[in-house]
Amino acid sequence: MAEEKRITPMAQDFSAWYIDVIKNADLMDYAPVRGCIIFKPAGYALWEAVQRGLDSRFKATGHENAYFPMLIPESFIMKEKEHVEGFAPELPWVTEAAGEKLEERLALRPTSETIIGWSFQKWIQSYRDLPVLVNQWANVFRWEKRTLPFLRTSEFLWQEGHTAHADEKEAREETIRMLNVYVDFMRNDLAIPVWEGQKTPSERFAGALDTYSIEAMMKDGKAVQAGTSHYMGTKFAEAFNIQFLDRDQTLKFVHTTSWGASTRLIGCIVMAHGDDKGLRLPPRIAPVQIVMIPVGPAKLREKVMARFDTLHAQLKAAGIRVKADAREEYSPGWKYNEYEMRGVPLRLELGPRDIDNNVVILVRRDTGEKLTVPQDNLADKVRALLEEIQQNMLNQALQFRQEHSFEAGSVAALGEILDKQFGFVLGGWCGEAGCEDQVKAATKATARCIPFHPPKQMPTCIACGKPSAATVWYARAY
Amino acid sequence: MAEEKRITPMAQDFSAWYIDVIKNADLMDYAPVRGCIIFKPAGYALWEAVQRGLDSRFKATGHENAYFPMLIPESFIMKEKEHVEGFAPELPWVTEAAGEKLEERLALRPTSETIIGWSFQKWIQSYRDLPVLVNQWANVFRWEKRTLPFLRTSEFLWQEGHTAHADEKEAREETIRMLNVYVDFMRNDLAIPVWEGQKTPSERFAGALDTYSIEAMMKDGKAVQAGTSHYMGTKFAEAFNIQFLDRDQTLKFVHTTSWGASTRLIGCIVMAHGDDKGLRLPPRIAPVQIVMIPVGPAKLREKVMARFDTLHAQLKAAGIRVKADAREEYSPGWKYNEYEMRGVPLRLELGPRDIDNNVVILVRRDTGEKLTVPQDNLADKVRALLEEIQQNMLNQALQFRQEHSFEAGSVAALGEILDKQFGFVLGGWCGEAGCEDQVKAATKATARCIPFHPPKQMPTCIACGKPSAATVWYARAY
Repeated sequence: MAEEKRITPMAQDFSAWYIDVIKNADLMDYAPVRGCIIFKPAGYALWEAVQRGLDSRFKATGHENAYFPMLIPESFIMKEKEHVEGFAPELPWVTEAAGEKLEERLALRPTSETIIGWSFQKWIQSYRDLPVLVNQWANVFRWEKRTLPFLRTSEFLWQEGHTAHADEKEAREETIRMLNVYVDFMRNDLAIPVWEGQKTPSERFAGALDTYSIEAMMKDGKAVQAGTSHYMGTKFAEAFNIQFLDRDQTLKFVHTTSWGASTRLIGCIVMAHGDDKGLRLPPRIAPVQIVMIPVGPAKLREKVMARFDTLHAQLKAAGIRVKADAREEYSPGWKYNEYEMRGVPLRLELGPRDIDNNVVILVRRDTGEKLTVPQDNLADKVRALLEEIQQNMLNQALQFRQEHSFEAGSVAALGEILDKQFGFVLGGWCGEAGCEDQVKAATKATARCIPFHPPKQMPTCIACGKPSAATVWYARAY
Repeated sequence: MAEEKRITPMAQDFSAWYIDVIKNADLMDYAPVRGCIIFKPAGYALWEAVQRGLDSRFKATGHENAYFPMLIPESFIMKEKEHVEGFAPELPWVTEAAGEKLEERLALRPTSETIIGWSFQKWIQSYRDLPVLVNQWANVFRWEKRTLPFLRTSEFLWQEGHTAHADEKEAREETIRMLNVYVDFMRNDLAIPVWEGQKTPSERFAGALDTYSIEAMMKDGKAVQAGTSHYMGTKFAEAFNIQFLDRDQTLKFVHTTSWGASTRLIGCIVMAHGDDKGLRLPPRIAPVQIVMIPVGPAKLREKVMARFDTLHAQLKAAGIRVKADAREEYSPGWKYNEYEMRGVPLRLELGPRDIDNNVVILVRRDTGEKLTVPQDNLADKVRALLEEIQQNMLNQALQFRQEHSFEAGSVAALGEILDKQFGFVLGGWCGEAGCEDQVKAATKATARCIPFHPPKQMPTCIACGKPSAATVWYARAY
């Protein structure tokens, strides 16, 4: 009746493990449209947690939400040369509507710099109109060849912040401020440590002067670019003629930024925290923080349920996201597996003997530890434990990252590390794109970022041996 | 410097008034794509208030959010005959992607019954899988000929709830439950009274067995259909083969419902509450509930500002959405007009003499009333006033509706009322579509709904004079 759900062990086949987890934890379903997925309630709830965490931080830093049309006229896409080259190959196009062929093709937005640039041009006249600080939550489209649920899909959900400033200094400060907002959110809400830093020119956003990213390590040692922040200079301002009359009575182009994070964060949560039992969710974002399961023989069920319901009501009243599963057609053992797979941080078991002893059993998802705790002040105990689990999951992720961080003095050394041990590898880089290409061709690793705070400075380029212009994190990436 | 913003008087030209208000209050901008608009921050903030109000009510009634792909294969749209006829003429189509022509055209969703039906078929096997209660927040597309900002746009934002049930009774209960959620939200959050009732067959959603709606009266007496709830019977279940094994071991089709409300609610708020000074926002949804403006001569500004800042901090700490506008380049008078136009429910003025008297001046947007109140316990006073304004705005709307509600015994009488006085007209209806057509041709009014609680029963059809099958609210509508 209760079908058994099996998860391929991570060590055996990481990709199969990932698909098993997201399917069995009911996060998604494949859609009938190429490369698209359905975000099922358990998956979408993680996106809602991301939205809450980011949106409150955006508002606290002075940004307002807006919404711009999804359809972008072809002529807009064509205005910024590098932007066209970067995005045009992946665009879906609307060519007909209401039975008629359109005069101009309309692209499904891959990102909104162009239509927002067009709008800024209308909204900005004077220095008094600056800065403009907007964000939108929206669906976007990139028709990529290879897709992977959450990590790379034809349609995905994201937020994109767009700002305009009077000068370079202010725009660059904004770019870094928002990068740091992502760092803070990842660490404190998702319990995922990231490396923040600058992208090399070859990895820049199409149209940006500088791109910054946060890079997170997955359990297979690969990198996920979890968020980006771009300084555009005056490129889009020039393409869309966004000028303002400054205090000195001269017309100047604004400096713009954009920054985004997407539903790939859902995949990132799964791959950064999951284990062979399934998902593991940090309490701060877990839709269900504790699941309650009654145990013991059926004939004693009535004795258990009165107390069970009381404790359930207490936890709920305390603002803890609690779920009670007293269904009788599923065994406790089946439920344990089910909620471990769904990543619920804490499990509470209550049986007849626990009632006699005035205790409950709590089982931590992060460590598997089983605790016997008094029923008195249960909500306080649960709250403290959830906080402890949140911290511990961050510590576990930090330790995993530490154990899978290496350094290499040559391309050969880097390749050897990635083949045998997997992880991120610190190496020097002379600044030439050719050397990056060489690393990629030999090892499939790319320069993830030039970290602001590298653990150490690497003196020579791993490809050409010349002095380093920068120290880089190299890794294979999603 | 501070340009004057003019609003066409409502009585002179209601349409011009509406456009002036939404432009001057900075709610929207026209987009470069036909029939699309940009939701500017002040407009989008109203949508966020709608989202908060509805989403919490959906969750309290057991629904979860999900997200389904925006692109719908043409073959899906074609599966339900009435659905095709209703929506196909207005669809935009993606025909190319990533440089290649698609084998099957993909529609930009006008609504998601089809793709969700396809998903339900995969998710539902047994009675134990029921009910399924999901909602999504999404953008949708209807390429209509005549558009009007917020009320009818090519792309708009909405929520669409979709549920599947084991039997008709449960599905019908859900349909009415969600209609009542809309009624409650409109009345208590938006301060807009509505008539809830059933649509006549000619006004039904394409594919529904029964459609219910809430109908709100605008300041020009026209109706806005502010939300709908549909009972689909087993139509979509049959089209997408959504069957379940019931307790009695037989396969049965599920009964489905859907219900939606959209960004047209923004237009509805403007037209239901606005006046010749601009927008009027109910405090519960106002992004800014009170604006503080320092007054008096510049040389005494310093004396005022210390207290001004203290009071600002007090209101903020009390959880009141307060904005302080101490800009010196704009005069108090200009600011009064500006925030009245933006619909801020309360204005606080503080000048040197008020400091001496330990008072502030409060001005209500709903009545224009000016109050002198002590500075002590200001937050409590403001909170009470905001609550009073919320109630008063609902009362004003109820009174306006009362004054513009009529009854008619014939089509001629109905036409006469609508030409001279505008509003909703109660009339009898025999149940024949031909009589509805006759009313529409003669008066441009349509049957808005058959209200559940009509003020009175009308005995005869206004068109044919035969006995009534139902009592109907007739009105011209957006």
